[in-house]
Amino acid sequence: MSTSPCLVAVDWGTSSFRLWLMSRDGTVLAEHRSKEGMSEVAERGFELVLESHLSTLAVPQDIPVVICGMAGSRQGWVEAGYIDIPADLTIIGQNATIVPGTARRIIILPGLAVRSLSEPDVMRGEETQLLGAHFEMPSGTCYCMPGTHSKWVSMDGATVSGFETFMTGELFATINAKTILAHSTGGKGDVDAHDPAFLTGVRDGWTRPEKTTHHLFSIRAGQLLYGHGLDESRARLSGLLIGAELAGAGINGGEQIGLVASGVLQRLYHAALSECGVNVRDIDADVAVRRGLIESWQHFSNTSGDQKRP
Amino acid sequence: MSTSPCLVAVDWGTSSFRLWLMSRDGTVLAEHRSKEGMSEVAERGFELVLESHLSTLAVPQDIPVVICGMAGSRQGWVEAGYIDIPADLTIIGQNATIVPGTARRIIILPGLAVRSLSEPDVMRGEETQLLGAHFEMPSGTCYCMPGTHSKWVSMDGATVSGFETFMTGELFATINAKTILAHSTGGKGDVDAHDPAFLTGVRDGWTRPEKTTHHLFSIRAGQLLYGHGLDESRARLSGLLIGAELAGAGINGGEQIGLVASGVLQRLYHAALSECGVNVRDIDADVAVRRGLIESWQHFSNTSGDQKRP
Repeated sequence: MSTSPCLVAVDWGTSSFRLWLMSRDGTVLAEHRSKEGMSEVAERGFELVLESHLSTLAVPQDIPVVICGMAGSRQGWVEAGYIDIPADLTIIGQNATIVPGTARRIIILPGLAVRSLSEPDVMRGEETQLLGAHFEMPSGTCYCMPGTHSKWVSMDGATVSGFETFMTGELFATINAKTILAHSTGGKGDVDAHDPAFLTGVRDGWTRPEKTTHHLFSIRAGQLLYGHGLDESRARLSGLLIGAELAGAGINGGEQIGLVASGVLQRLYHAALSECGVNVRDIDADVAVRRGLIESWQHFSNTSGDQKRP
Repeated sequence: MSTSPCLVAVDWGTSSFRLWLMSRDGTVLAEHRSKEGMSEVAERGFELVLESHLSTLAVPQDIPVVICGMAGSRQGWVEAGYIDIPADLTIIGQNATIVPGTARRIIILPGLAVRSLSEPDVMRGEETQLLGAHFEMPSGTCYCMPGTHSKWVSMDGATVSGFETFMTGELFATINAKTILAHSTGGKGDVDAHDPAFLTGVRDGWTRPEKTTHHLFSIRAGQLLYGHGLDESRARLSGLLIGAELAGAGINGGEQIGLVASGVLQRLYHAALSECGVNVRDIDADVAVRRGLIESWQHFSNTSGDQKRP
């Protein structure tokens, strides 16, 4: 039966947990989301948290679980290692780590690493999204994956040839809450992608990234001298940091970029990339990670004798 | 008598308080330093804190006090306004604000403002240092004043023709303590200006400022993949941010820059500027601010009828 569950796919990050119960034909039978990211779960125990979700959904014990994300980091559940680039994404499944000592078959996918002494880099979770994104856009050669730590990835077919991480999301949150700018930008409301202050910030960050830390202080001065409001200032802060990221990623305008994102980040980056003349192809981040998890499970089971289980 | 006190000079910033009891001929008769910056003092009251220092030193009530810094901000003691640039620094004294309702004559110097809708900026305290620095280096046309919010200033004689603030110091402290990099860089030890990781960071930040937020994450990856230590990583963080500031300030190498600084910031910026080929002229920040405070008091008293008081 296509509607009977065959696999649980989980994206388990630093601050969020997303679980999908999948049928054999790729239908989503159920979805659970929570804020039970790494930091919260480490105390309660990963298996307990996972099984409580599965028990709510009455998932039989013979249904396996495939996990990507920070659950595979050293501070996570079981360390799942890194595959060095250049890396064919179709091999991450067969390089999965089996969680030991559980009744259920649970595997965690490895991350990717750039082993360069001058500019090392790592990703964990995005490699699985990328595999799914590759199936959505097989001709794609450059992907932007915005987030706490945004990834820019160069692909050659299904092989990751290079990537760079930018701390944009974390810097935005930290500067907005923990610096003197908190008086000028502080707040939690989503930035409006159509706010002129956002788009001007993007352009300033993109064309003059070397001025970014000056432009940041200028937000404070704008509040002191002209009474600029919190929303406008927060939009400019967001735009400046995203614009500087686009400069760092080498955007010149005219490129085609696969934007793997959802929600407010999709709206902001789509607007920012468009402002800089990029031809944006949107790829839903949830769709991509689910697809990558399912494909990776197939690759794992095809090479491990687990074929009959899902 | 040259050794009798004639003026109290105070630099009262966000996080520090520095007071010098001066004689007529410019000799420092006594010095007090404390961490009683703005945030702590706001609760206890500015006058109480100031008078407790003066009472320890038995400073007679007829000795006036001249203050620069954040004590003159809206959240400070009495708001002392801003003078717009271009601004002749010899007029800040005559534009001082008299603190009302005190038995002693106390004045607070104004800050400077760049009233530009696209890139507004402000300073408060540095204008007084600059006046002193101008006397130390009358031919200087470009000054670097590192700090929580570093200032880069263009001068034409004693007139400030332009300035830009970079949030370097605050970003260093915040990133070092409040982001994922805290695991890799966290600590309070001073960065060593001769650490190769610092100097490599300066060069990377200066030559590729658009990559800064990527290079920051790379510090984390370097710890995960290569076990880079805290001190080395913190030195690289410091170097990257200072290097990006130098790029933002337009440093090409070969310039002469007056570096108004002291302590560890003097050592780090001197090394960073030298690494980028700048001809650095060191100006002690304490000497500069004291000189600026004294000169400003003279300008104030010459125009206000207070000539006889000091």
